[in-house]
Amino acid sequence: MTDRPFELFYWPSIQGRGEFVRLALEAAEVPYVDVARRRGPHGGVAAMQRLMQGGTTARPPFAPPFLRHGDILIGQTANILLYLGPLLGLVPKGEADRLWAHQLQLTAMDFIAEIHDTHHPVSSGLYYEDQLAEAGRRAGAFRADRAAKFLGWFEQVLARNPAGPAHLVGDAPSYADLSLFQLVAGLRFAFPRAMAGWERSVPHCVALHRAVAKIPAVAAYLASPRRIAFNNDGIFRHYPELDHANDD
Amino acid sequence: MTDRPFELFYWPSIQGRGEFVRLALEAAEVPYVDVARRRGPHGGVAAMQRLMQGGTTARPPFAPPFLRHGDILIGQTANILLYLGPLLGLVPKGEADRLWAHQLQLTAMDFIAEIHDTHHPVSSGLYYEDQLAEAGRRAGAFRADRAAKFLGWFEQVLARNPAGPAHLVGDAPSYADLSLFQLVAGLRFAFPRAMAGWERSVPHCVALHRAVAKIPAVAAYLASPRRIAFNNDGIFRHYPELDHANDD
Repeated sequence: MTDRPFELFYWPSIQGRGEFVRLALEAAEVPYVDVARRRGPHGGVAAMQRLMQGGTTARPPFAPPFLRHGDILIGQTANILLYLGPLLGLVPKGEADRLWAHQLQLTAMDFIAEIHDTHHPVSSGLYYEDQLAEAGRRAGAFRADRAAKFLGWFEQVLARNPAGPAHLVGDAPSYADLSLFQLVAGLRFAFPRAMAGWERSVPHCVALHRAVAKIPAVAAYLASPRRIAFNNDGIFRHYPELDHANDD
Repeated sequence: MTDRPFELFYWPSIQGRGEFVRLALEAAEVPYVDVARRRGPHGGVAAMQRLMQGGTTARPPFAPPFLRHGDILIGQTANILLYLGPLLGLVPKGEADRLWAHQLQLTAMDFIAEIHDTHHPVSSGLYYEDQLAEAGRRAGAFRADRAAKFLGWFEQVLARNPAGPAHLVGDAPSYADLSLFQLVAGLRFAFPRAMAGWERSVPHCVALHRAVAKIPAVAAYLASPRRIAFNNDGIFRHYPELDHANDD
């Protein structure tokens, strides 16, 4: 299955939703092409847009990221990981465990959408600066309620894992673990003051983040130029005016 | 597989995300229990909340809807349909088709989240009346851009289906068709003026809505008291101030 190349299509200058797929491919140490970051006639954002908008794509994805593997073209981040998990050995074998891992990923994607909307609560088509007042209110509600609710849920999932709190599913790293790592890393970048407070209530999440960062393949990736740095064009953005400690 | 009872857990007074699951179970004519709508000690919202918050639930879902079937408890609407599709005969058999149907459902869920946020752009924890200004802006962006983009994408998917535009996947009704039916019905309720304009560009979507409503099991469901009427507590809400024709 892994003799055909994995081609990831995602925006070339941000981590964004594509990063959940990059982390899985990197952790599994399989070769892949990050198409929009490749130079030349078959690379760049143009190659990605051709596939999305082209009249010849039978099943065009609604939005990046999407993955091409042989004849199959898959969109939606969680769906890509549903497909890749078994191929990359990043999910347990049983159906119940796989549905559970997917449920964790889907909840991570809901969390990500809410994180995005803290800085773009009106429209992705407008600049942040054009929705400052709304962002202030939305981020306030996120800090007051939603972030702790999501993080607390993941903490509970870790605490209740029969195989122990080191992993979300089973007794080995899954793509869900990689995704929770990414959520913790992103929240630290975007909301450093608030996150410092939230972390005190989610020690298992913090420990998981630390452990995932030490997986050799992940550590090598994070230290490489393939890991795009967090920046204020992505989903996790650091706007100090949106970040306050809970007791401020 | 269907000898064990299907138990759906969802809010009892709205269609919401649970309706996508209800439609699948109804279309397949399998018996199920809508637990929170059942009277008695094992019913009501309390039964749903016990399962979510209970200290004994090994894999508690983050939010409704969720489905219990035998030993398995599944959360996330699209994940429930991923599981139910093959059991209910509501998805083609091949892996590629199943991933594609799931991708369609995940995109429908993204659409639903944006529809929800037109009236709750700041927080689900606040009343609509406490976020009127933000809702006005968010709904404006939704009407100007997002709704037509999502509907146009589904229209394109129908147009490109090699088996013809009557279905999203393959040549028979799938849960994705049922979901697109629900999106059209809900948009007609929430945004009747704007939707009248959008519909002119998506004839295949309109035809699919009509055809799904005529499936005997669906028609019987829609005419029954089991179908909760659209109302302004759900995801699709009709606030005239948020609905304008595109050329207004």
